[in-house]
Amino acid sequence: MSILVVGSVAFDTLTTPSGQRKKILGGAATHFSLAASFFTQVRVVGVVGNDFTAEHEAVMTRKGVDTSGIEHANGLSFHWTGSYEGTMSEAKTLGTDLNVFGSFDPKIPESYKESDYLFLANIDPVLQLRVREALPGVKMVAGDTMNYWIADHRENLLKVLREEDILIISDGEARLLTGEHNLVTAARKVMELGPKSLVIKHGEYGATAYFSERSFAGSGRLTPFRAPALPIETVVDPTGAGDSFAGGFYGYIASQPELTPQVFRTALFYGGVMGSFAVERFGTERLQEATREEIDARFQVFRELSHLDLESAA
Amino acid sequence: MSILVVGSVAFDTLTTPSGQRKKILGGAATHFSLAASFFTQVRVVGVVGNDFTAEHEAVMTRKGVDTSGIEHANGLSFHWTGSYEGTMSEAKTLGTDLNVFGSFDPKIPESYKESDYLFLANIDPVLQLRVREALPGVKMVAGDTMNYWIADHRENLLKVLREEDILIISDGEARLLTGEHNLVTAARKVMELGPKSLVIKHGEYGATAYFSERSFAGSGRLTPFRAPALPIETVVDPTGAGDSFAGGFYGYIASQPELTPQVFRTALFYGGVMGSFAVERFGTERLQEATREEIDARFQVFRELSHLDLESAA
Repeated sequence: MSILVVGSVAFDTLTTPSGQRKKILGGAATHFSLAASFFTQVRVVGVVGNDFTAEHEAVMTRKGVDTSGIEHANGLSFHWTGSYEGTMSEAKTLGTDLNVFGSFDPKIPESYKESDYLFLANIDPVLQLRVREALPGVKMVAGDTMNYWIADHRENLLKVLREEDILIISDGEARLLTGEHNLVTAARKVMELGPKSLVIKHGEYGATAYFSERSFAGSGRLTPFRAPALPIETVVDPTGAGDSFAGGFYGYIASQPELTPQVFRTALFYGGVMGSFAVERFGTERLQEATREEIDARFQVFRELSHLDLESAA
Repeated sequence: MSILVVGSVAFDTLTTPSGQRKKILGGAATHFSLAASFFTQVRVVGVVGNDFTAEHEAVMTRKGVDTSGIEHANGLSFHWTGSYEGTMSEAKTLGTDLNVFGSFDPKIPESYKESDYLFLANIDPVLQLRVREALPGVKMVAGDTMNYWIADHRENLLKVLREEDILIISDGEARLLTGEHNLVTAARKVMELGPKSLVIKHGEYGATAYFSERSFAGSGRLTPFRAPALPIETVVDPTGAGDSFAGGFYGYIASQPELTPQVFRTALFYGGVMGSFAVERFGTERLQEATREEIDARFQVFRELSHLDLESAA
């Protein structure tokens, strides 16, 4: 079934230990769309400037992504400049030029209105809520956010959280949102704010999913689930890893008839797979070239990574 | 088969968000022994002072641990004072009174000489090597170390690493030992220093095992293995979690006829189980009360935590 994603379509200027790239295609909605496109139909709502060319758009359309909801405004596209050092676990932001994204007012094409799954990428929660309200009939809402919105736009963010079936955030974001150091306590408190299920990303250590009694339509085990991350020796560029994770995760969910614990777990593995591809080259390069065969082969590697065959265990 | 462990038997004075304890039983060899005692026969080599009473010794002997190799010296026992705050991922050391441990010279009782498995807990690598050389017939050698020895006693440590079948260290220790940020690169370089296999502990995120062609007697998959850690809401005292992990891990290995990839993986899960019990109460309190039934029940929880049933995955 189809996913509508609203978020940034942007350019990134990056420095990592592997090299530099200037104004390459990026943005949360871009990475999400490419990763999700391997699993389901994706539709993008965003805004770009005059520097966003037909070739940039083709990166998405070649994967079957519907870009008719990307508004072309007069000016320059959102442009982020950043660098990574050391363990590369955090980006250092050197510049944030919002440009046309600064006055983004999401417009949803008529042809998008029947979308089944909504993904609210990391944008102003006021806009997230506006999009969510414009699509009252969606089957499921998932979302992301970041420290900036948690710290300085809390009231608006809380309104969005009440609308979300699944929230996907990092350790640090879960701690900031709740004021709790312990991640299990933080997870419980986050779900009290609204989300039925919660995925907390641990960077290179994988992710943990927490469930509530509202997570699944039928019954299901509500104990947490930990998805490992692949130990990767060559991390070229971590930009977009989290969005690619979300795209693989939510794309897989949207491809399934209903959300069961088994589907959720499998989706977390596919999220990890897409995140692991994303970091292997700069920007969207690796996801542009990935094939479903490669993805499924790596899925098997992920499964093997933590799999314990009980029958042969003493 | 039997494990000989050499390391500290000590007292800890602790402050954690859950409270305070003064001079409670601790030490790496103590935590290791108690955790390993659920799986196999354990023999301890260490030194204590006059403040170490028959009741302290009984904590170990009640679990079948052989304490005849614990030397009673004139003076006070090793006493560590520390505190934990925030995420509790690191202890703040407030005092280190080595006392009789400062002149520790491990003496191995004749009855220990036929030990099959040797564990070199975190002590001066000169002493680790001396013990290892006194037991030329052991079947397997595993060891731990810490930043202090890596940074300031590197040459001595390198001699020990060449003798080790399995090294168990943390992320930070692997990075310090090799100067590499990337843990996969660090793992490779650590194994070039000698250890046949390497377990890198990620604190609350579990552990990753890395293998070399020398890891297993027969053939075996040499891809890394990730063992999850249980998300725990009530961490009362993290002291000894790493040593309890090592005890569960190595104790299980020593209980098996040979080291296969399957045994190694299962051992990592048991390591996680014992670490998760250790932090639930202060010091050795929880391990003193644990039963094998509880341990095996939690083992199932660990397995379920990351288990993906492929047959029913689409």
